Amino acid sequence: MAEEAWRRWGPLDERGAFNTVDASVVLKAARLVGEGRVFALAQPLGSQTPVPSHRSRMAHLMDQDGGDYAAGAERPGGYQVADDTLFTPMHIGTHIDALCHAWYDDAFYNGFSGNSMRSAIGATHCGIDKLGTIVTRGILLDFVRYHGAPLSAGAAITSDQLAGLAASFNITLDAGDAVLIRTGWLETMLADPPRYFAAEPGIDESGGVWLAERGVSLVGADNFAIEAIPFAEGRYFPVHQRLIRDFGVPLLEGLVLATLGATGVTEFLFVVAPLPIVGGTASPVCPVAVI
Amino acid sequence: MAEEAWRRWGPLDERGAFNTVDASVVLKAARLVGEGRVFALAQPLGSQTPVPSHRSRMAHLMDQDGGDYAAGAERPGGYQVADDTLFTPMHIGTHIDALCHAWYDDAFYNGFSGNSMRSAIGATHCGIDKLGTIVTRGILLDFVRYHGAPLSAGAAITSDQLAGLAASFNITLDAGDAVLIRTGWLETMLADPPRYFAAEPGIDESGGVWLAERGVSLVGADNFAIEAIPFAEGRYFPVHQRLIRDFGVPLLEGLVLATLGATGVTEFLFVVAPLPIVGGTASPVCPVAVI
Amino acid sequence: MAEEAWRRWGPLDERGAFNTVDASVVLKAARLVGEGRVFALAQPLGSQTPVPSHRSRMAHLMDQDGGDYAAGAERPGGYQVADDTLFTPMHIGTHIDALCHAWYDDAFYNGFSGNSMRSAIGATHCGIDKLGTIVTRGILLDFVRYHGAPLSAGAAITSDQLAGLAASFNITLDAGDAVLIRTGWLETMLADPPRYFAAEPGIDESGGVWLAERGVSLVGADNFAIEAIPFAEGRYFPVHQRLIRDFGVPLLEGLVLATLGATGVTEFLFVVAPLPIVGGTASPVCPVAVI
Amino acid sequence: MAEEAWRRWGPLDERGAFNTVDASVVLKAARLVGEGRVFALAQPLGSQTPVPSHRSRMAHLMDQDGGDYAAGAERPGGYQVADDTLFTPMHIGTHIDALCHAWYDDAFYNGFSGNSMRSAIGATHCGIDKLGTIVTRGILLDFVRYHGAPLSAGAAITSDQLAGLAASFNITLDAGDAVLIRTGWLETMLADPPRYFAAEPGIDESGGVWLAERGVSLVGADNFAIEAIPFAEGRYFPVHQRLIRDFGVPLLEGLVLATLGATGVTEFLFVVAPLPIVGGTASPVCPVAVI
Repeated sequence: MAEEAWRRWGPLDERGAFNTVDASVVLKAARLVGEGRVFALAQPLGSQTPVPSHRSRMAHLMDQDGGDYAAGAERPGGYQVADDTLFTPMHIGTHIDALCHAWYDDAFYNGFSGNSMRSAIGATHCGIDKLGTIVTRGILLDFVRYHGAPLSAGAAITSDQLAGLAASFNITLDAGDAVLIRTGWLETMLADPPRYFAAEPGIDESGGVWLAERGVSLVGADNFAIEAIPFAEGRYFPVHQRLIRDFGVPLLEGLVLATLGATGVTEFLFVVAPLPIVGGTASPVCPVAVI
Repeated sequence: MAEEAWRRWGPLDERGAFNTVDASVVLKAARLVGEGRVFALAQPLGSQTPVPSHRSRMAHLMDQDGGDYAAGAERPGGYQVADDTLFTPMHIGTHIDALCHAWYDDAFYNGFSGNSMRSAIGATHCGIDKLGTIVTRGILLDFVRYHGAPLSAGAAITSDQLAGLAASFNITLDAGDAVLIRTGWLETMLADPPRYFAAEPGIDESGGVWLAERGVSLVGADNFAIEAIPFAEGRYFPVHQRLIRDFGVPLLEGLVLATLGATGVTEFLFVVAPLPIVGGTASPVCPVAVI
Repeated sequence: MAEEAWRRWGPLDERGAFNTVDASVVLKAARLVGEGRVFALAQPLGSQTPVPSHRSRMAHLMDQDGGDYAAGAERPGGYQVADDTLFTPMHIGTHIDALCHAWYDDAFYNGFSGNSMRSAIGATHCGIDKLGTIVTRGILLDFVRYHGAPLSAGAAITSDQLAGLAASFNITLDAGDAVLIRTGWLETMLADPPRYFAAEPGIDESGGVWLAERGVSLVGADNFAIEAIPFAEGRYFPVHQRLIRDFGVPLLEGLVLATLGATGVTEFLFVVAPLPIVGGTASPVCPVAVI
Repeated sequence: MAEEAWRRWGPLDERGAFNTVDASVVLKAARLVGEGRVFALAQPLGSQTPVPSHRSRMAHLMDQDGGDYAAGAERPGGYQVADDTLFTPMHIGTHIDALCHAWYDDAFYNGFSGNSMRSAIGATHCGIDKLGTIVTRGILLDFVRYHGAPLSAGAAITSDQLAGLAASFNITLDAGDAVLIRTGWLETMLADPPRYFAAEPGIDESGGVWLAERGVSLVGADNFAIEAIPFAEGRYFPVHQRLIRDFGVPLLEGLVLATLGATGVTEFLFVVAPLPIVGGTASPVCPVAVI
């Protein structure tokens, strides 16, 4: 193991692999739009959105609603208005992990000290506010289409399998690509949260490193943690450790890929714009594919 | 006054003016990308993000952070991880109003009853989850550039002024355009929240209706409520009443437009992807312009 | 059915049966202290505190903790400090229901309109802030001791059974008494929340009315809703409807009574001091018995 | 400086000075009740409750309210019900600090490591859940009555002044007493939160140590931090450091003492029952005095 991407974009960089997307990549991605169809890739968010048992459920609370007017709330100039409030874990539904979300040896991506992230101040380095927005080519690696069926719990997608699928579908990965992996897990299991969060198919460490070495800007999947669970013997969230910390590659979890997958496309214009939460470790997002 | 856009897209429609964006609009918008430069148009979000006095400030709380490892938290397989939680009003920073946010006569856009939005269930009609994502042509109406200075508190942008600026900058509005209005208010006043929220320059009712009649998909601005405050005599949030409820046009508030404005562009690819919060009246967003 | 206690303490009263406790009742209660032993009757509160499925779990979040100092937070003058934040439903653990918590026919206790309680303003009448603190004689009606075993799910405690137990234990109820009913349900079932909240032993409507007619100030129990569940045919939370709304008797739910019960006492000094949450429908509390 | 009370109640003790209250103290306190009058000593809690600028305001949100029924919510068996949710800092309004709230040299009261309190787990030692409830003699040291006027910002109450007031009012402090200090600060300044939190009159270190050495169980005051602010040169929250950590004496802040003070009483039955929040650093409370 090594810190492969550290200092690649300068000693103070906090955007990691998002730096792979330069203007030419954006331009090329925009030119992929041929039909004008838009796909929103996010799960609905609410108190019923599944969360692993150690996290709180989202709570959506109304500060003012239609009932208040029915009960006589004033309407200056006829005006009626509704407001609401959210209490939510950041790692919920479809969300992107900031580069401060996972690490080891007390050092984040690019060597920032884990001690720079504390309760009162949040992440002073590598927070989601530092990551920014990405507009790039999206690549769909659709293992459901490849195998003709959703993957099973624990199924590990290796580098060889990634290369095999890419070859089979005539996909060549370029620097800056946002790679989205469809396993079928979300559509198969999300309705049963305890099973959904107990295990999952996903890339293993070899697969993660292979993608990172291709220079991708982001790895996403339709599961809750990108990587195969259970982990390989003796390892614990190895893809998180290697991709986020060593390669500076953000992970985009909980994607809804079934509708996009049904089109059979492999490349598209891809946009994900995290909320710039100061010092945040993630942001719920609604990623967008345009074909 | 009338319900101009009701039933235009069917009796059950909850997306309003977002329906003006069809595949041809998306396609044309994508072709506007010429340089490959990306602009994120959102304010940073945190406990310091200004909110009007009747709303709670955002609270960002760490569930697990670097300090916990410094204090001895376990690291299975070396793995360290951080999580966080947000408590936040939905109408904060840069956010988009759902079509259930503002109404009168107890009826939302398209005639849905205000009584359909209650505390426990949120908005069962016209919630932000029903609005969806938009990819379209963005148009910048830059009054700071037009006038050579930021607008003042209370300055009302009328239909004539919109038409004048459009003519001066050779802008023709098309159906489906997302119109972003730069007043300079946010960059001038945001550092002084009580003044920022006490008044603002913005479109008046004539301006709002003029835009809606051009068939725009969305109106945004670099202020907190799109419209001029104080309101015209006897009116209260008239632009909210007319655009959101009568025309079904979502409003995008609190935009950061200074950097985009500095480029001098008037049109660009524009993407905004609200979080699909079930029954929500708004979503904080990070809108994106690509030139 | 009737509004038995309405106007009994004046047309503007919002304290209901707490008014039964006058200075002489307090004085007599204080004189019950003979040993100097104190019993706190509350469940621990945290993310593991059971809640029914329609409520959020409590979230306890640290704003500053020991880990932050381990990671290098500053210590002016050596000083270290910890802060925390709570997100919690009010009806959790051991809590007292305000007189605005339950009603029918759109009218609260004493005839206040249900419309006076709205989202933005909370309860403008009969909120927990209006109830105040009570210091009175506590009476333990211990059905576990009486029957030699905890009651079963659905077991309905009738007026006759209350009278029978009182006679058996030589208990005479006086005006102002806080009556605590021990069913054994909490100690039997709390570890299995789905079963705990699915049904419970408790008083039925006859039992509730009998207690209210004795002039008690409060009814508490070691279950989650005071009353027997399932309800009698065609009724829904009848004890809540009758006691809270018609008699103005607050209910104290989720009591921990096993230790107090083990002493065999039937009367004691009792104190419960709700947090004066403006417009709140309840308050978590730590009720106190002193023998 | 020394850890005066460490190990006094055993090496595993987490209740500190609350241990000074034994059954005989409780019994004696109960006998102080002569009139049967009850005083609740808490500030109202809501979004308007003043907080220092680094803390969030309380948010009180309705999950179900009267408006929802006005708008047509179902009423099974006629039943109507309201629920609410609180988001709140623990150190707000009238609250008691747990023994884990303040420390130095990385060690809490009785030597527990500061590292035992982390984000995910809260305080595993000396949390508010470990403190428990106290029923004891309350002593009012009323400096407003003593001086004939409220104390001024920064006024330091020394040990000599405490002794002087006690002598003047014929007060003898006993082990186990809960001492409440009335400065007049809350009634003078709370309406102006920036001034209220900028400075305050209160005990200085000599005063704090003098009280602790008398064996008191608790020190409370009608200000926000018990102690005089600004602090003595070179010191920072010295009373918190010494009383909470070295002597194990909990502090009770934000008391409302004007009404009790107006009676002229100096001793009374005193009850404070913190919510047993697992791992919490404080609890909002409604302390009770009975005369």
